[in-house]
Amino acid sequence: MQPITVLVTGANRGIGLELVRQIVARQNPPKHVFATCRDPDRAKDLQALAKDTPSIEIVKLDVTDYATLRNTVVPHVQSKVGDLGLNLLINNAGLLLRHDLSTVTPEAMREVYEVNTIAPVMITQAFLPLLKAASARATGGLSCSRAAVINITSKVGSCADNQSGKHYPYRCSKAALNIATVSMSVDLKGDGILAAVLHPGWVKTQMGGSNAIHELSDSVKGMLDVMDRLTENETGKFFEWKGNEIPW
Amino acid sequence: MQPITVLVTGANRGIGLELVRQIVARQNPPKHVFATCRDPDRAKDLQALAKDTPSIEIVKLDVTDYATLRNTVVPHVQSKVGDLGLNLLINNAGLLLRHDLSTVTPEAMREVYEVNTIAPVMITQAFLPLLKAASARATGGLSCSRAAVINITSKVGSCADNQSGKHYPYRCSKAALNIATVSMSVDLKGDGILAAVLHPGWVKTQMGGSNAIHELSDSVKGMLDVMDRLTENETGKFFEWKGNEIPW
Ligand SMILES: NC(=O)c1ccc[n+]([C@@H]2O[C@H](COP(=O)([O-])OP(=O)(O)OC[C@H]3O[C@@H](n4cnc5c(N)ncnc54)[C@H](OP(=O)(O)O)[C@@H]3O)[C@@H](O)[C@H]2O)c1
Ligand SMILES: NC(=O)c1ccc[n+]([C@@H]2O[C@H](COP(=O)([O-])OP(=O)(O)OC[C@H]3O[C@@H](n4cnc5c(N)ncnc54)[C@H](OP(=O)(O)O)[C@@H]3O)[C@@H](O)[C@H]2O)c1
Repeated sequence: MQPITVLVTGANRGIGLELVRQIVARQNPPKHVFATCRDPDRAKDLQALAKDTPSIEIVKLDVTDYATLRNTVVPHVQSKVGDLGLNLLINNAGLLLRHDLSTVTPEAMREVYEVNTIAPVMITQAFLPLLKAASARATGGLSCSRAAVINITSKVGSCADNQSGKHYPYRCSKAALNIATVSMSVDLKGDGILAAVLHPGWVKTQMGGSNAIHELSDSVKGMLDVMDRLTENETGKFFEWKGNEIPW
Repeated sequence: MQPITVLVTGANRGIGLELVRQIVARQNPPKHVFATCRDPDRAKDLQALAKDTPSIEIVKLDVTDYATLRNTVVPHVQSKVGDLGLNLLINNAGLLLRHDLSTVTPEAMREVYEVNTIAPVMITQAFLPLLKAASARATGGLSCSRAAVINITSKVGSCADNQSGKHYPYRCSKAALNIATVSMSVDLKGDGILAAVLHPGWVKTQMGGSNAIHELSDSVKGMLDVMDRLTENETGKFFEWKGNEIPW
């Protein structure tokens, strides 16, 4: 894939930061990479990366702040990309709160759903005009070069794979993100926009914890390889970082 | 199945009312059927049914009012059933708001998730001691006679079946309810409690609308037939009212 414009949420650490790092290091890198995070002043690693890479622009965005998204972030990105639109939107920011049936609270259910499900839907809605603009410039089939929404989900959001139970707030939010992504794939196909969900594996980040088994760099390289290969045959599907399809 | 104690939410109209009607009309009907609804004074059809059927008790419950659930409803049911516990909890109350990607709002996403996903989880949590008490009295495998949580979902919450997109608030809430039910089935199996999701078909109710194709009585009869047949082999699964398994 060779998207000209990319936006990644939750880009200050973990998978989001590594996505930005590897995307700008590719051959024919994008012209604009919008790396959003909710506290740019504290995003030291991202700042260091951006300092050496003029294509990276750090943009302040709490993904649940829909007023700022609409009134500030989208108009700003629009002003920077102009007619190029947005080729690739990666909804990566995510929240894990651990609760079983005895400890789960409405507050935990709401908070995780807001970040992991509602925010990606609202961000996709807000960037739709830019995704459509990018898509309209291109011809040919669907791809992450033309226009795509990639939602970072988890295998923990697979009903078919749920052998270990628990995790109500997180599992619910990711299963919901999965079906939202299927709807996006159906709704946006006619506009030439691809949508898919990717599972990064169990990765060494703050969320993944110290027992995680996969290196951040391997997971992100794998997910970018998967994005390279996505076409209209894969839109609306669920893949893990090695490219295997995951049952719903 | 021959549950001795049953609770149904959203029992004032539609599928919930018909569930209560058919459950009390069965051979060897339950001793206690708690028919909950948020406005008992206006539940005229349910009142008329209860007048002729002493086993029915109408209980006021807005399913999203977790304080009343915990402080009033559960203690009241507990006081009525005593050692019998609760054999069958049917989370039926549900809300449909129609939104596509251009109209979806955070408020609609939150409201539908609260009723369709968070409430069934919190109600199950709250009744867990009573479900466990009912299960502990019985021996043998899992069943809706012993102890079960039946969550009324929709095929619209199936990722595999999502060919028509849209419906973000409702699809997300039902996909989330589905995976919560799988977690319940795993978490509660050791306690002898079954959990499953049922799709009623497209049914003539206020929600189903006038174009719906199935009669309320057929759908509910079908779902009760399915409940009759559920065992440990079916816990954690997704069935439509005719008994066919639905892919996630
Ligand atoms: N690591 C794994 O094993 C694993 C497995 C499956 C799926 N995933 C998914 O992968 C994605 C990235 O996870 P990660 O492992 O990189 O986790 P992480 O290290 O915990 O990073 C989470 C990122 O999300 C951001 N975020 C959370 N809430 C936000 C909000 N309201 N607004 C803006 N940003 C917000 C965080 O920003 P702050 O620094 O400001 O908190 C941070 O950048 C998530 O969607 C996660 O569910 C991870
Ligand atoms: N009909 C269909 O074709 C269809 C298809 C698939 C799935 N379903 C599912 O089947 C279930 C029943 O639907 P239905 O067709 O009977 O719908 P309905 O006729 O619209 O009835 C919905 C019921 O849910 C109750 N409810 C909603 N919010 C509530 C709350 N906060 N607290 C307490 N009760 C609340 C309503 O009470 P009020 O009267 O007080 O509003 C009413 O009793 C739902 O879970 C629905 O998603 C229906």
